[in-house]
Amino acid sequence: MFESAELGHKIDKKVYKQEEPKLREQLLQIQFKVNQQKKFPVIILISGVDGGGKGETINQLYEWMDPRYLSTFAFTNPTDEELERPFMWRYWRILPSKGRIGIFSGSWYSIPISDRVMKVSAKSNFEKRIDAINRFERMLVNEDVLILKFWFHLSKKAQKKRLKKLEKNPLTSWRVTKESWKRLNTYNELQIVAAQILRSTSTPWAPWTIIEATDDHYRNLTVGKIIKESINKRLTKKDTTGNTTATLPLTPNIRELTRSVTDIDVITAIDLNLKLNKNEYRKKLPKYQGELSELIRSDKFKKLSVVLVFEGSDAAGKGGAIRRLAAAMDARQYQIVPVAAPTEDEKAQPYLWRFWKHLPRDGRMTIFDRSWYGRVLVERIENFCSQSDWLRAYSEINDFEEEIASSHTIIIKFWLQISQQEQLRRFKEREKIAFKKFKITEEDWRNRKKWDQYHQAVCDMIERTSTQLAPWTLVEAEDKKYARVKILKTICEKIKQAMK
Amino acid sequence: MFESAELGHKIDKKVYKQEEPKLREQLLQIQFKVNQQKKFPVIILISGVDGGGKGETINQLYEWMDPRYLSTFAFTNPTDEELERPFMWRYWRILPSKGRIGIFSGSWYSIPISDRVMKVSAKSNFEKRIDAINRFERMLVNEDVLILKFWFHLSKKAQKKRLKKLEKNPLTSWRVTKESWKRLNTYNELQIVAAQILRSTSTPWAPWTIIEATDDHYRNLTVGKIIKESINKRLTKKDTTGNTTATLPLTPNIRELTRSVTDIDVITAIDLNLKLNKNEYRKKLPKYQGELSELIRSDKFKKLSVVLVFEGSDAAGKGGAIRRLAAAMDARQYQIVPVAAPTEDEKAQPYLWRFWKHLPRDGRMTIFDRSWYGRVLVERIENFCSQSDWLRAYSEINDFEEEIASSHTIIIKFWLQISQQEQLRRFKEREKIAFKKFKITEEDWRNRKKWDQYHQAVCDMIERTSTQLAPWTLVEAEDKKYARVKILKTICEKIKQAMK
Repeated sequence: MFESAELGHKIDKKVYKQEEPKLREQLLQIQFKVNQQKKFPVIILISGVDGGGKGETINQLYEWMDPRYLSTFAFTNPTDEELERPFMWRYWRILPSKGRIGIFSGSWYSIPISDRVMKVSAKSNFEKRIDAINRFERMLVNEDVLILKFWFHLSKKAQKKRLKKLEKNPLTSWRVTKESWKRLNTYNELQIVAAQILRSTSTPWAPWTIIEATDDHYRNLTVGKIIKESINKRLTKKDTTGNTTATLPLTPNIRELTRSVTDIDVITAIDLNLKLNKNEYRKKLPKYQGELSELIRSDKFKKLSVVLVFEGSDAAGKGGAIRRLAAAMDARQYQIVPVAAPTEDEKAQPYLWRFWKHLPRDGRMTIFDRSWYGRVLVERIENFCSQSDWLRAYSEINDFEEEIASSHTIIIKFWLQISQQEQLRRFKEREKIAFKKFKITEEDWRNRKKWDQYHQAVCDMIERTSTQLAPWTLVEAEDKKYARVKILKTICEKIKQAMK
Repeated sequence: MFESAELGHKIDKKVYKQEEPKLREQLLQIQFKVNQQKKFPVIILISGVDGGGKGETINQLYEWMDPRYLSTFAFTNPTDEELERPFMWRYWRILPSKGRIGIFSGSWYSIPISDRVMKVSAKSNFEKRIDAINRFERMLVNEDVLILKFWFHLSKKAQKKRLKKLEKNPLTSWRVTKESWKRLNTYNELQIVAAQILRSTSTPWAPWTIIEATDDHYRNLTVGKIIKESINKRLTKKDTTGNTTATLPLTPNIRELTRSVTDIDVITAIDLNLKLNKNEYRKKLPKYQGELSELIRSDKFKKLSVVLVFEGSDAAGKGGAIRRLAAAMDARQYQIVPVAAPTEDEKAQPYLWRFWKHLPRDGRMTIFDRSWYGRVLVERIENFCSQSDWLRAYSEINDFEEEIASSHTIIIKFWLQISQQEQLRRFKEREKIAFKKFKITEEDWRNRKKWDQYHQAVCDMIERTSTQLAPWTLVEAEDKKYARVKILKTICEKIKQAMK
């Protein structure tokens, strides 16, 4: 794999002096355009062996380009705030926004590689991580990000030579630590692991470029030129969106195919007659509230966290259910995130960015009142995004939830269903009662007309995103009392299960 | 001080049942308006003795209002990311934006109070912190925030009684820890310290309300009513800005008074003839770059951080100086923050919020290319803010920098000065050179016409914000080489000084 990067590529001083000023000018111009247009962010990953000159190249890029619109991130030990969130959280929190260039020294590759070299993680975990990386990068590219990945390679001999050279120079000796020499011993292991991960993550949408790293001029100039050309290509592309990856065709919609026969689907199958009478409600509500209250105060909960998703038709009772739930907890333990239209800053980032922001620390809960499912519901129906955007959202959402679930976070998703008649009754009631009036808007009446479209979208959503890790709980919400108790009970059960 | 909060205030069940539904409706309506208008945020501080029912009242507020637009923050031990920043960073990062209500359980008061009760901090520190709190809250109010501060009081006897009651009830027993009982022993000390801090921070713009906390109905209803009335008052105020605090009249401008006599000011006094020839430059630039490079890699630097501010006339050479500086460092150690117009999210927060965000961790540097001084320069001249806004900015900026400096952060501020003729020459040059063209815009030419106004604004800025902790360094920038070397040299000196 690395053969072509051991051929002794070199650029002599004279050629470099000729080429460098031209490249610099072009890079500056291109960077300026990216910043003016604010249509896509650029992520440059610089990885490779110790002594390969990652730092030097990054600093060279800073000299060539306008450093004010560059950001560089190095990933040393995660902070405690990072440790308490899913693996990818620390990368999401520093994604460059549209118009900016972010350079990642090391990245989401570093930990999987070093864990594998040191045999800390099993092969199956390693492979799982590779899959997750591929999906993550595909999502980024689909969200308009331009990703450039560089791997700096040195032969074992060349690495030794470079480390020695760096050590001798007082200006660079600090770069060579005991660890650098130690890692020379695991050179072969690293080559094997690196080859494997590079091969598996060199995708059409985010391919790796392997760079022979022995000669500074060659390495810097090559990286600079590739950056220039890649950005330029992107800038001149007519369609500025990044949708270069084919969205896989959806499997034929079983519901559609069988509908004429059975006329039943997950939504119509919901039994809206389920009810609780006042007495049962008065007994059961405080029972589960008390249970929840105790569960989240237990020591075991300190190592868990909970993400709740509330979706449902308008007036299905999400707010009321959330209030009953909130009443059982200490306000200092949870946050409620009402999801509305994205802000300017949020629009300059991939779709899921604004949800990553709110993921809870250990021992905490985040309640999403509406959620990332907006993309496959309202955004799909109102054409707020393209068809390919909402089509790929299903698998991106599944990836997202898998990532969350893998860090001791319980995901519980509720869909609250009411009948069309009941919705009408509640709308009218809201218009009558003074302090409920503000809850009903023109938009609600408009949405109501699209009942069938929503029905279809909800069925698709449940079919495609009810996974083992994060299944949907369908809530019969025709009777508010029944719905509230079912929601509380479900949450208690899921937490208890996770504590086992 | 707490006498009136030991009178045995009570509200009986019947009255409560009459009053509560009305209050709830009013609170909901008011909260809805706040959220619709998005004109100001509300901060509710709930403090007081253990067992005073802080949690209960907060949960009651959640039941009364729409919890989706409430956020509650409890402050336990700071995270490592918080510990490496100035004391107030953790509060700035969670300030509610306009239209939202943030409830702070404990707050910037908790640590000063407990440190003083435990005698961890000296009296002088305590008093300094009180001053800082007053200035912080005044700034918030000036930035349109509505602050409501509640102190829940219990007599010693009442506290003991309440703790016992809470302990007996299985649903609340978890609230009573060993620490709660321990703190009962320091009851008297707490009363003394609390009385002192409440007296000193009960300002016209953010007064304390002391609430007798023995009776749940009384406590909750009183807090609810005060919140309702305060927000209502604010909503119906014609002038919706929060400028309730008089901006102190500025001391007569000495420069103005003496100008006719001396015709000299800090700017005209700058010697623009200072130069470096090529040879000196080629020797000195790498010398100081090398020195800086070593300084920031030293162990001592790991406990420091640096904030650099670059201000100057257009084309004064800020960008070039920053690049020379950047070349001396590892891109992984610093961030450059170019300051432009605020985004939507930033506008929903106090002015300084967007700068707090970027404060460096230990061992790191943030370089601000333009900065918070925009308020007293461009915003003042272009009338982007009101006169009272930029007038109060001087002291707010001084407070901000004091706060930064007090957490092992070195602040170095550069003003780069060139002559009007030199600016013209550089503008013309930029228009000629292809890769510099993008640097010159219509706006630059417009700004140039306001040379005298900027001159005045810069003089005012330097007079009022060159403090001992964060003095301005005036840079003779007519000769770029001289300026770059002076900047690097100054940074090296200041870091060395701080390391002593």
